[in-house]
Amino acid sequence: MLFVIKVGGNVIDNPVLLQSFLQDLTAIQGPKILIHGGGKIATRIGDQLGIESKYVDGRRITDAATIDVVTMVYGGLVNKQLVAKLQALGCNAIGMTGADANVIPAVKRPVKQIDYGFVGDIDPARLQVGPLKAMLDAGLTPVFAPLTHDGQGQMLNTNADTIASSLAIALSAHYKVRLIYCFEKKGVLRDAQDDDSVINLIDRTVYAQLMEQKALSDGILPKLDNAFAAIESGVKEVLIGHAADVRSNTTATVAGTLIR
Amino acid sequence: MLFVIKVGGNVIDNPVLLQSFLQDLTAIQGPKILIHGGGKIATRIGDQLGIESKYVDGRRITDAATIDVVTMVYGGLVNKQLVAKLQALGCNAIGMTGADANVIPAVKRPVKQIDYGFVGDIDPARLQVGPLKAMLDAGLTPVFAPLTHDGQGQMLNTNADTIASSLAIALSAHYKVRLIYCFEKKGVLRDAQDDDSVINLIDRTVYAQLMEQKALSDGILPKLDNAFAAIESGVKEVLIGHAADVRSNTTATVAGTLIR
Repeated sequence: MLFVIKVGGNVIDNPVLLQSFLQDLTAIQGPKILIHGGGKIATRIGDQLGIESKYVDGRRITDAATIDVVTMVYGGLVNKQLVAKLQALGCNAIGMTGADANVIPAVKRPVKQIDYGFVGDIDPARLQVGPLKAMLDAGLTPVFAPLTHDGQGQMLNTNADTIASSLAIALSAHYKVRLIYCFEKKGVLRDAQDDDSVINLIDRTVYAQLMEQKALSDGILPKLDNAFAAIESGVKEVLIGHAADVRSNTTATVAGTLIR
Repeated sequence: MLFVIKVGGNVIDNPVLLQSFLQDLTAIQGPKILIHGGGKIATRIGDQLGIESKYVDGRRITDAATIDVVTMVYGGLVNKQLVAKLQALGCNAIGMTGADANVIPAVKRPVKQIDYGFVGDIDPARLQVGPLKAMLDAGLTPVFAPLTHDGQGQMLNTNADTIASSLAIALSAHYKVRLIYCFEKKGVLRDAQDDDSVINLIDRTVYAQLMEQKALSDGILPKLDNAFAAIESGVKEVLIGHAADVRSNTTATVAGTLIR
């Protein structure tokens, strides 16, 4: 089983939670890939550099100055600090973006109602998984920053959830893949106010019911859509859970929400 | 023949020269590794972030704020932009630091007269070349930022010339290596004022004569010391020349200075 694990900015921003998470990640046996979000540091550094962060519908607009900031902060500072910390724990990490070894070619998002700027859209069928497979076979743990490129020399900002599902899909031709989304809750909650109301299993039928009941928070919907898309494209299982539960979420006895 | 090619900040800072250099690099047949310096952009971004650059004897003092800046600028912005540009030209580049796959373990430089801060010293014998060899065999071109790590979670700023010679030495167990330093002159000059006074061959005897004549500028001495150390440790040839001559400097008819 290959574990493709996405960890969000809330963990990156919390040194204690992050260190514990990286220890758990190191303890997971077998092949694994980490995809990390950015955290608030890109916004902070952008502010210090006088670059205004712009969002539309909760999505960052990536202008020319912003793609440089996220390239250096996500692809440099955050990614290399994660790699160095994992190496210190004995996990043989290797930092990656989608540009490296051309693993994730992307296209700049077409301008429709909104011009997202330098944001990359991915077609999982175009991923080049050969180099990743070689790394995994050699015992390396690829660690991806949320960046791709357009094949014409331009780096592109790309949603980490989407990178994770795309990698999981592309690698499912070679491995049984469990795709794990770590976020700030224990799993998908039946009651957003009750952290212990984890829904342990969601399939298409349950999903339709939950949608009808409007029981799901807006934040979780793209994750579930990504999850079902991944499963329909060959990923064996998707898990949504807390970063602190990542080890149990790689076993048969999961703490989070299993999606099939 | 494996070409280990170091390119300095003056090329990184010049878009026209850089693009031409990357085209030439792409055209070089066979396995190759690029090591890049930082350029002035780290200083510029550090200034914008209110971090003062400190130098002693021409060497940057790397305090805690500065190692974060160089990690993001060299390891993120500069490195990934180079990778994206090379990918656009058809060169299958993969960005690296010494932390990635633990290729270059280093130690924080011991404090003597000067505390250099988070600067890494390398022992070529400790390099882990297995992952690099696998990349080269797979047709990838590793592109190194001038960064290493201490194995305890800390990134370290490391001289790009030293990274290049250390990689060349370590890989000379597996390849015939030509180590090429690209800089702003055509080669080692007999007369610093005359760009056409390239010394085409320097061996130990010639070096001793040049030293006695005090014919060499201060800037070139560390490069020559690194070159001879590399040759004594197994590197077949070292070349010092202009970035614009990199293609001819990978052939038998070199434009720069050959060191044996």
